[in-house]
Amino acid sequence: MVDLRVVLVEPIYCGNVGSISRVLKNFGFNDIFLVNPCDIGEEAYIMASHADNILDNANIVDTLDKAVLGSSLIIGTTSKPGSTTDEHIRMPFFSPKELKEKIEEKEGIVTILFGREDVGLSNNILRTCDMVVYIPTNQNYPVMNISHAVSVILYELCDIGAGNIPIAKTEDKERLFSHLEQFLFDINYPPHKRDKTLLMVRRILGRSELTGREVQTLHGILSGAELSIDRNK
Amino acid sequence: MVDLRVVLVEPIYCGNVGSISRVLKNFGFNDIFLVNPCDIGEEAYIMASHADNILDNANIVDTLDKAVLGSSLIIGTTSKPGSTTDEHIRMPFFSPKELKEKIEEKEGIVTILFGREDVGLSNNILRTCDMVVYIPTNQNYPVMNISHAVSVILYELCDIGAGNIPIAKTEDKERLFSHLEQFLFDINYPPHKRDKTLLMVRRILGRSELTGREVQTLHGILSGAELSIDRNK
Repeated sequence: MVDLRVVLVEPIYCGNVGSISRVLKNFGFNDIFLVNPCDIGEEAYIMASHADNILDNANIVDTLDKAVLGSSLIIGTTSKPGSTTDEHIRMPFFSPKELKEKIEEKEGIVTILFGREDVGLSNNILRTCDMVVYIPTNQNYPVMNISHAVSVILYELCDIGAGNIPIAKTEDKERLFSHLEQFLFDINYPPHKRDKTLLMVRRILGRSELTGREVQTLHGILSGAELSIDRNK
Repeated sequence: MVDLRVVLVEPIYCGNVGSISRVLKNFGFNDIFLVNPCDIGEEAYIMASHADNILDNANIVDTLDKAVLGSSLIIGTTSKPGSTTDEHIRMPFFSPKELKEKIEEKEGIVTILFGREDVGLSNNILRTCDMVVYIPTNQNYPVMNISHAVSVILYELCDIGAGNIPIAKTEDKERLFSHLEQFLFDINYPPHKRDKTLLMVRRILGRSELTGREVQTLHGILSGAELSIDRNK
């Protein structure tokens, strides 16, 4: 079974934090992290209504790394999806319905990141996400209030089917990406293409819900290739 | 193609009215009626953000009848669905997904009613609705903020397929229900059962998306039966 975590990155209006706490409780969730949030004042509790316990138990942390620790999949949200297949940061993007299909039957913590109300998630953060989700809104005004975006996504995910296919942890995947980066360096892959290629591989592996065993096998392929290269030097 | 209308019945917080205007614009809708709303002050415009045009064009009316005029289907929303099939006011109820399936391929105005923030829609209003919709929330805290309920429902309905099966107008269906009420009276249907039976028929016909022609045919059956009864008197 998938456990869902909501991470708000530097929210600036505490009313939204309260509203989102209520949405979590409405849909039966309770795992929320706040990265460097605004002060959580009275307005937050007014908007949380009967979800004050969710608000009280929100995990306040000072880095995104602490908020995603233990996750198996990190999902970035954006109101500005990529428009060409060349933009790997925001492409491909998935609708909430498609996200649901991807994570159904899996096991692990799926963490969904929501950016600051005024600027959203930075490209640097989107870059580290396994998948990017975009709510299909009208082009005239695609930018939703953050609490409404959370409600649409949690509504879609609230009845995920139970499953037990364990997804690899983020930490393990990061080690794989570091390994791949080193590998590209070792094989003299053209330096100006490295970042883009690494991001593309991130996107491919991000949406393929790797298991821990698969991550180990990919490490093994890279190691085998490295050994073979060393031998032929 | 179905046109969607949102009706807020006596909203008491103008911030919610603004938030809901934004949600409409996010999902490409613009038809909103406010029945005896609170004053629409600055907070409404702050929450509407770039949807101030939707807020400015909201239709403010003093009766629900004016707000639903011209509708083909009236949908009531509730956070308290019925629990037994004997409760026709709130039963059967549909999820937003099921509502979408019901109205897909149809033509006409589908009007969705949202009740006051503190009390929701009254039983008297739910009684007149064709269908009742309930967002599948957690039993521990099923009551959503009204603007979040609107966003979930409009998200679900924002990509309704185009169709051209015209649904009968509410006014025509109301005449049919009056006809049926008179008919039950004429045939001496047990008085203590009349209201419940009428409501049950409302629910059956409400969810069957009658066309205008079908409404006329049902009138014809009742009229034929009346004639036959008169003759045999």
